[in-house]
Amino acid sequence: MLTQLEVATKSRAQLIDISERIEQAVQEAKIGEGVLYLFVPHTTAGILINENYDPSVAQDILDFLEKLAPRQGKYKHTEGNADSHIKTAVVGSSAIVPIQKGKLALGTWQGIFLCEFDGPRQRKVFLQLMDEGR
Amino acid sequence: MLTQLEVATKSRAQLIDISERIEQAVQEAKIGEGVLYLFVPHTTAGILINENYDPSVAQDILDFLEKLAPRQGKYKHTEGNADSHIKTAVVGSSAIVPIQKGKLALGTWQGIFLCEFDGPRQRKVFLQLMDEGR
Amino acid sequence: MLTQLEVATKSRAQLIDISERIEQAVQEAKIGEGVLYLFVPHTTAGILINENYDPSVAQDILDFLEKLAPRQGKYKHTEGNADSHIKTAVVGSSAIVPIQKGKLALGTWQGIFLCEFDGPRQRKVFLQLMDEGR
Repeated sequence: MLTQLEVATKSRAQLIDISERIEQAVQEAKIGEGVLYLFVPHTTAGILINENYDPSVAQDILDFLEKLAPRQGKYKHTEGNADSHIKTAVVGSSAIVPIQKGKLALGTWQGIFLCEFDGPRQRKVFLQLMDEGR
Repeated sequence: MLTQLEVATKSRAQLIDISERIEQAVQEAKIGEGVLYLFVPHTTAGILINENYDPSVAQDILDFLEKLAPRQGKYKHTEGNADSHIKTAVVGSSAIVPIQKGKLALGTWQGIFLCEFDGPRQRKVFLQLMDEGR
Repeated sequence: MLTQLEVATKSRAQLIDISERIEQAVQEAKIGEGVLYLFVPHTTAGILINENYDPSVAQDILDFLEKLAPRQGKYKHTEGNADSHIKTAVVGSSAIVPIQKGKLALGTWQGIFLCEFDGPRQRKVFLQLMDEGR
């Protein structure tokens, strides 16, 4: 079962907490035990699981990535978003989360972020659910 | 089938080889062909697959990450572990490993490491197994 | 169903677009909806999904990784490929891609790359397919 979220991003670089929207999609699917696959079909946006309680953690991660691959660096790709591709490569385009008793088995402090590195744009996140109990 | 390993880490930053414990869990599950999903439900610890033969490889990876995101850097998150969140973002929170003939299809030199970045602590690793032959 | 691709790499560091070979394997498997798991059983080669339209993006990613973990850096591992292990840790050893209507659900600009960091060598990529419709 492949569904997708539409996410409107607001700035060039942004970590957007999509945990609640994903949790809702999982609950609607009524899966007891299984796995959620997350896939971002873009090359300048990725997916990340990290702390969503203190928003400064997401900001630190963005600052870190900007220092690592500065927007104004020297790159061969001439569209002005070479850094966005690199940042996406670092965080990755896919992730998995176990589902237990119908809910995401995330840790207490974990949230799921869409990572926008070349926004603002309209982005998609593919959600696929595998049901163990089928 | 979701099971979990408990891992007691011994220092602030440490790569702990959990390959044998995971292999044992897979063999006990008696799955012929399938996939193992690994998920770390923490925001300052991650999961990594890399060489476990020469322990200096794990040390080089730790040294690299410490240089990349130093503990004593400038961060907005004020709990003293902003670097641990960043290091976790770089290595990631989930991984998959194919299972073939009842065993992990790891390469000759590959091991599975829990990556502790804010220890010592008691950590969990979720293991989920999907059996193709069901 | 576990299959494998053999990939002959040509230089020490190289991103090799294996999207078409993977797409072909998926189409041969005749799966309608499902998930493709990708796993690289090596410790100095990884897997990455990013833009494959402008080849300068792959070159920028390689240049970035070389700057991040230079071949001639100071490492404890003495085989001359410590940087290759580190680069592999950054990009990762596994990925997933959804399959929809028998095809990889990749975005318009996405390609799948084997990342060689210690070549030239003969490399393997494991492909595992999970069929939702079973």
